[in-house]
Amino acid sequence: MPDPRFFTRKGPFRVREIAAWTGAASPSGSDLDRSVSDLSYLKKAGPNDLCYLSGPEHAAAAQASKAGACLTIESLTDLAPPDAVVLIAKDPQAAFSVVADSFYPNRSSPIMDAEQMPNGALIHPDAVIAEDVLIAPGAVIGPGAMVGARSRIGSMTTVGTGVMIGEDCDVGPNVSIGYCLVGSNVMIHPGVRIGQDGFGFVFDSVAGRHRKVPQLGRVIIQDDVEIGANTTIDRGTLDDTEIGEGCRIDNQVQIGHNVSLGKRCIIVSQVGLSGSCKIGDDVVIAGQVGLADHVRVGPKARIAAKSGVMRDIPPGTVVMGYPAKPIRTFWREVAALGRLTGKGKPS
Amino acid sequence: MPDPRFFTRKGPFRVREIAAWTGAASPSGSDLDRSVSDLSYLKKAGPNDLCYLSGPEHAAAAQASKAGACLTIESLTDLAPPDAVVLIAKDPQAAFSVVADSFYPNRSSPIMDAEQMPNGALIHPDAVIAEDVLIAPGAVIGPGAMVGARSRIGSMTTVGTGVMIGEDCDVGPNVSIGYCLVGSNVMIHPGVRIGQDGFGFVFDSVAGRHRKVPQLGRVIIQDDVEIGANTTIDRGTLDDTEIGEGCRIDNQVQIGHNVSLGKRCIIVSQVGLSGSCKIGDDVVIAGQVGLADHVRVGPKARIAAKSGVMRDIPPGTVVMGYPAKPIRTFWREVAALGRLTGKGKPS
Amino acid sequence: MPDPRFFTRKGPFRVREIAAWTGAASPSGSDLDRSVSDLSYLKKAGPNDLCYLSGPEHAAAAQASKAGACLTIESLTDLAPPDAVVLIAKDPQAAFSVVADSFYPNRSSPIMDAEQMPNGALIHPDAVIAEDVLIAPGAVIGPGAMVGARSRIGSMTTVGTGVMIGEDCDVGPNVSIGYCLVGSNVMIHPGVRIGQDGFGFVFDSVAGRHRKVPQLGRVIIQDDVEIGANTTIDRGTLDDTEIGEGCRIDNQVQIGHNVSLGKRCIIVSQVGLSGSCKIGDDVVIAGQVGLADHVRVGPKARIAAKSGVMRDIPPGTVVMGYPAKPIRTFWREVAALGRLTGKGKPS
Repeated sequence: MPDPRFFTRKGPFRVREIAAWTGAASPSGSDLDRSVSDLSYLKKAGPNDLCYLSGPEHAAAAQASKAGACLTIESLTDLAPPDAVVLIAKDPQAAFSVVADSFYPNRSSPIMDAEQMPNGALIHPDAVIAEDVLIAPGAVIGPGAMVGARSRIGSMTTVGTGVMIGEDCDVGPNVSIGYCLVGSNVMIHPGVRIGQDGFGFVFDSVAGRHRKVPQLGRVIIQDDVEIGANTTIDRGTLDDTEIGEGCRIDNQVQIGHNVSLGKRCIIVSQVGLSGSCKIGDDVVIAGQVGLADHVRVGPKARIAAKSGVMRDIPPGTVVMGYPAKPIRTFWREVAALGRLTGKGKPS
Repeated sequence: MPDPRFFTRKGPFRVREIAAWTGAASPSGSDLDRSVSDLSYLKKAGPNDLCYLSGPEHAAAAQASKAGACLTIESLTDLAPPDAVVLIAKDPQAAFSVVADSFYPNRSSPIMDAEQMPNGALIHPDAVIAEDVLIAPGAVIGPGAMVGARSRIGSMTTVGTGVMIGEDCDVGPNVSIGYCLVGSNVMIHPGVRIGQDGFGFVFDSVAGRHRKVPQLGRVIIQDDVEIGANTTIDRGTLDDTEIGEGCRIDNQVQIGHNVSLGKRCIIVSQVGLSGSCKIGDDVVIAGQVGLADHVRVGPKARIAAKSGVMRDIPPGTVVMGYPAKPIRTFWREVAALGRLTGKGKPS
Repeated sequence: MPDPRFFTRKGPFRVREIAAWTGAASPSGSDLDRSVSDLSYLKKAGPNDLCYLSGPEHAAAAQASKAGACLTIESLTDLAPPDAVVLIAKDPQAAFSVVADSFYPNRSSPIMDAEQMPNGALIHPDAVIAEDVLIAPGAVIGPGAMVGARSRIGSMTTVGTGVMIGEDCDVGPNVSIGYCLVGSNVMIHPGVRIGQDGFGFVFDSVAGRHRKVPQLGRVIIQDDVEIGANTTIDRGTLDDTEIGEGCRIDNQVQIGHNVSLGKRCIIVSQVGLSGSCKIGDDVVIAGQVGLADHVRVGPKARIAAKSGVMRDIPPGTVVMGYPAKPIRTFWREVAALGRLTGKGKPS
């Protein structure tokens, strides 16, 4: 189904191969040599397509589906599409993602090969570019910058003086990176701004105006991080701004100077983290949340969408509201307010 | 009044011409040969300027105005500037916009002609560029991309592999477009990001980390759409993200993967639409609203600024609040909360 | 401590010199010839480092510090690091910023010298470039544009037709500026969009669709302004959008058409100011606040984070909430709501 204009399909593959990649098992007697040529949804799949069935709520769609192969969990085997070879996996959606990587080796950014274009990129003679790096036309790589093996730098992207980018990174077009060390296997989407000045100034009462606090730190981005389009990450004042390994950051997120994100955090779109916030490992922050400066969030805490957080959040807590409070309290207050007026059903 | 540094004025025009463009009528005996050389406000207009009077609240300004011509509605004719030729239109502001298009053929982006510049744009030999297309210096057009007649592509803009752009489009500078089909008469402002990966991953419990869900869909943008600066639109996972005909999207809006917008929707600045939201025709979403994923909004619904929407919204409903509720309920609760403390006047 | 990869250090300097720059005084008998080679924090400072002590809450860190020199206020002199030469200033943090400017002449953007790069910038022959201007590779300067002395224009930045930029400005990479007059000493961070169309249209009931209102104004930016990464500022409809002298605007702020900001305003990240808002001098607007259109905010008013403002705010007032109200009322209502349910502690 993916548009061949944008995605190059590999395959077809046999069910046997898919089973090997995903660790999935098939009921005895299954036709492991059945050929699968594409991916699809239950509703749109044809006899050459692989799909997945993740829960009983999709039983009707599955029964009507013409899919040729279906990833599912053991307890749903009987509900799978009638003509499909069944592949039993622990997590069918995760397994489907594994297979998708084989059918469509993932291309995140519209990166084009400079050698095919009439003009090349602008690479400073003192920059160090490793092997198999693709630098798109119009990119600028500054003096002393380093780009690791197999990384790709999109068109019109600025990699500033001294910036280090690890291996297997994928940096989209129109990105600016300065004052930053980037690990390996990092994906940076278009329009991301990394390393600009933090928002720091003091009021100079003698001069009668704000005086800029020099911003002399860096941004450190660990391995396996993804950063969404038009997100901004300021560099630190003297210490660094840090993004931990495995973090997933959505579009249009603002990360202030000296913020520290632990490992595997999920930060949804349009969240704002003010200066010096310290976020533990495995924290989830939903869309449009704002944190005041210096707030500390404990590991595995979760913050519901649009919350305004002014105080520290203990580990494992779930909060919501403006100001944020334990999520049960939030909903209890919503109900109480509704009773006050005799109408309270949120929509 | 517009600065000639930026806007090239045409004209002067006669009242007769303005009447013809707008369908406006003048009282008998009006001087239809009066010449008008520019546009202005009631307060600043001189004897060669056209202005408009849209409501009785501007009566004093109109009486003091020196304007030479004035668009207004029939019932306000007597309140028009004393020396002005009156032009009676159904909607004076809309008529004024029509006239402005003639005085100042609208130029949205600082697009410059590549031929006048020392270096040209970077156009892949396999790209297809129609007639009368203007591609600004520093733009990159990828292999297989198509740009329709009379469209303009701003400087430092990336048009990715296989992207199709229709006729009469105006794409600003520093834009990234990938995995996308764009209709005709679409205006895309600077810094817009279209077609990057959606924010999709599953937790792979075996590997102990998040696994990226491959994003294999596209973005489809219908005709007559406007997209504001630094807005981000992710491509779909397997299906497409869709923007309906005539939608107006403001700056810094986030549109997640697989969102579908109906026709003529108005999405104000800093709104966030999470993945798979389905928005009907003629919906208005005010600034900084957030929608949870998979929310459905019925046609002609309106969502007030800063609302947080977690449930479906029926057609024609007006909601407000966090969580969003019918707008009357919201204001009733605001009042009830004020009474609890003896002070409740919002400011 | 700053990473020499990114920051070039000057010095060492003598305490005597630091005292002269900052107006600080040392107790009699201090070693004013002591040499200082870098800046640091109390905790990390060594015998050649300067740090500062701003309040008694840092007394323990100061006592344990090995710093060689320390800026502080008179009343804290006895708490300064034991081996440090003490420098007594009115505002130690402001003085520290002054010194930092001497050690690290501040470079905000990864701007590279076009002459060192294989290809230069694209400068229209009718553009006027003053002396000592640095234009980075990949920048485009349009016809009739002017760039004042000592200003720097980052890579892949578009300076549109007729745009005027004053002296000593620092414009980051990947910026778009059109329809704009910029004063002197203005810092514009990466990804900023200035001068695109405002979000204005009228519904044309005859045509059954929205009609664009031509946007014929400009953006005027006074001296000493800082504008954060990916912020958007629309141009005016007929009048101008105006940013007053000394304003500090953070990342991802949205400023609509015809907004007017007074002098020295502080606008924190992700704030949205709708069209035609008029903001007085010295106003502080915290993160993620939204203002409805045409709202007037009096001088020295303060708006707490995430507030939604629909009515005018008198001078000097502090407001918070959604809808915004006097901040005491907001907190009284939060407490009242908590009492309703027996649990109300915000977190």
